[in-house]
Amino acid sequence: MAAQNKHLVIVDWGTTSLRATLLDSDGEILDSYESSEGIAVVAPTNAFAPTLQHILDKWREPGVVLSLYASGMIGSRNGWIEVPYVTLPADAKQLAAGVRRVEVSPGVTLTILPGAIDNAKHVFPDVMRGEETQLVGLGLDKDATAILPGTHSKWARIEGGKITKFQTFLTGELYGTLIDHSFVASIAKPAAARQDRAFARGLEAAARGPHSGGVMAKLFSARTGWLSGQLEATDIRDYLSGLVIGSEFAEAREMGWLSKGETLTLIGRPDLAQNYKLAAEAFGAQVVIGPTDAALRGCLAIARLAQGVD
Amino acid sequence: MAAQNKHLVIVDWGTTSLRATLLDSDGEILDSYESSEGIAVVAPTNAFAPTLQHILDKWREPGVVLSLYASGMIGSRNGWIEVPYVTLPADAKQLAAGVRRVEVSPGVTLTILPGAIDNAKHVFPDVMRGEETQLVGLGLDKDATAILPGTHSKWARIEGGKITKFQTFLTGELYGTLIDHSFVASIAKPAAARQDRAFARGLEAAARGPHSGGVMAKLFSARTGWLSGQLEATDIRDYLSGLVIGSEFAEAREMGWLSKGETLTLIGRPDLAQNYKLAAEAFGAQVVIGPTDAALRGCLAIARLAQGVD
Repeated sequence: MAAQNKHLVIVDWGTTSLRATLLDSDGEILDSYESSEGIAVVAPTNAFAPTLQHILDKWREPGVVLSLYASGMIGSRNGWIEVPYVTLPADAKQLAAGVRRVEVSPGVTLTILPGAIDNAKHVFPDVMRGEETQLVGLGLDKDATAILPGTHSKWARIEGGKITKFQTFLTGELYGTLIDHSFVASIAKPAAARQDRAFARGLEAAARGPHSGGVMAKLFSARTGWLSGQLEATDIRDYLSGLVIGSEFAEAREMGWLSKGETLTLIGRPDLAQNYKLAAEAFGAQVVIGPTDAALRGCLAIARLAQGVD
Repeated sequence: MAAQNKHLVIVDWGTTSLRATLLDSDGEILDSYESSEGIAVVAPTNAFAPTLQHILDKWREPGVVLSLYASGMIGSRNGWIEVPYVTLPADAKQLAAGVRRVEVSPGVTLTILPGAIDNAKHVFPDVMRGEETQLVGLGLDKDATAILPGTHSKWARIEGGKITKFQTFLTGELYGTLIDHSFVASIAKPAAARQDRAFARGLEAAARGPHSGGVMAKLFSARTGWLSGQLEATDIRDYLSGLVIGSEFAEAREMGWLSKGETLTLIGRPDLAQNYKLAAEAFGAQVVIGPTDAALRGCLAIARLAQGVD
C-alpha cells in the first residue's frame, strides 16, 4: 500500500452550494472547487454522479487513488441517498460509524457522513446535517456551547468529548421569507450600508422578557416603527434582522441555553458571525469565533476515523 | 328636513376587499355590494372616487340623499386620505370626533372613520384600522376581552365603555407567508379536509411554556414531525396553523391577556372563529362568538354620532 498515492476529496454538499477540496495524504490542500450545484439544483434531475464526476475529472492523475467523502444535505431524504441520523449524545467515532457508501462510477464510491438526531425535550426529534461535522471540526475535546447561524440556526452543546444536545431555530428562513413576501417587502427600502442603530433596536425589542411578547407580538413593530416615524424605510430590514436574531437569543435564554457571562462559540459566515456577536453581547454573553474551515476539518477527521487508517 | 329621504351607505373598505351596504334611515338594509376592489387594487391608480361612484350610481334615486361612511384601511397612509388615529382609551364618541371627509364628486363627500392607536407598553405605538369600528359594533357597554383574528390578529380590551388597549399578532400573515414561501411549501400537500388531530398537535406544541421555546424554536417542528413520520405531508398545513394560532395564545398568556377560565369574545370569519375557539379551549378559556356584522353595526353607530342627528 503506497499511502503517498492516496488523495482525499472532501465535499461539503448542501442545499444551495457545493464545496469540494482536494487534499494530499498529509491533509495539505492541493485544490478546491466551489459552485451553486447544491442538491436543490442537482436532485431534480438526479445528476449527483455526473456533477461529482465533472469535478473528479480535473483531479485524477495516474497512480493516485482518490478517496471521496461528503457531508451535509447530500445525505438527506432529498439528497443522493438517505443516510440515517446518529443519535446524540455522540462522539466523532460514533459519527464515523454511521457513514454510508454510494457508487459514483464502477469501482468508485463516495462515503456520505450521517447527520445527528436529538430525541430529547423537543416537540419532535430535532435533526441536523452538516453542523455535527462542523462541531467535530471545531473540536469536541473542550466543553462548549456553539451557535451555527444560518437558514436553520443551531445551538449545540459539547460536553465530555461528545455532542450532547442541540436546538434548531428557524431564524434565517423566517427573516428571508418575511423580507421578500410579507408587508415588509412593500415598505422596506434597501440601505446603502448596514443600519447599526436599527439592528440594535431590533435586538433591544427582542431582549425584553416574555411578558412583553414573543415573535408573534413583536413582528408587527417593523410596521408600527415605520408608521410612527421612528424607523426609516431604509431601517426596516436591519431592524427585522435584529428582532429575529434577538428573538432567537431570547428564546434560547428561556430554554436554559444562555446564562449571563457565558462564552459562546460562533461557527459560520463572517457577516452572520458579526450579527450574532452583537446579539450575544446584547444578552450579556461573550463570544469566541470558531474556525471558518470547520466543515472541512470535521469531514477530514470523520473520514480518517471511517477509514480506520492514517 | 325630510329624514325619510336620507339613505346611508356604509363601506367596509379594507386592503383586499370592499363591502358596501345601503340602509334606510331606520337602519334597514336595502341592498349590498361586495368585491375585491380593496385599496391594494384601487390605490395604485388612485381610483377611489370612480370605484365608489360606480356603486353609488346604482343606489341613487330622485329625492333621496345618500350619506357616505367608510372604515378600514381606506383611511390609512396607503388609502384615500390618511385619517389620524384616535388615542386609546377611547369611546365611540371620541372615535366619531376623529372622522375626516373627502370629496367624491362636487357636493358629495365620504366620511372616513379613524383608526385607533395604543401608546402603552409596546415596542412602538400599536395601531388598528377597522377593528375599533368592529368593537363598537360588538358594543362597548360590557367589559370584555375580544379577539379579532386575521392577517394581523388583534386582542382588545373593552372596559368602562371604552376600548382601553389592544395588541397585534402577525399570525395570519406569518402563516400565509410560511405556507407559500418556506420549506413548508416544498413538503406540505393539500388535504381533502381539515386535519383536526394535526391542528390539535400544533396547539399542544405551542401551549408548552416559554422554557420549551417560542415560535423561533418551534416552527422547524413542522419539518421534524414529517421527517420522523409523526406528521403526514397532508398534516403539515393544519399543524402549522395550530402552531401559530397556539403561539398567539401562548404569547398573549405570558403578556397577561389570558387567565384560566376567562371568557373571550371572537369577532371574525366563521372558519377563523372556529380555529380560535379550539385554541381558546386548549388554553382553558371559554369563548363567545360575536356578531358577524360587527363592522356594519359599528360604522353605523359611529356614523350617527358623527352626524350628531338621527
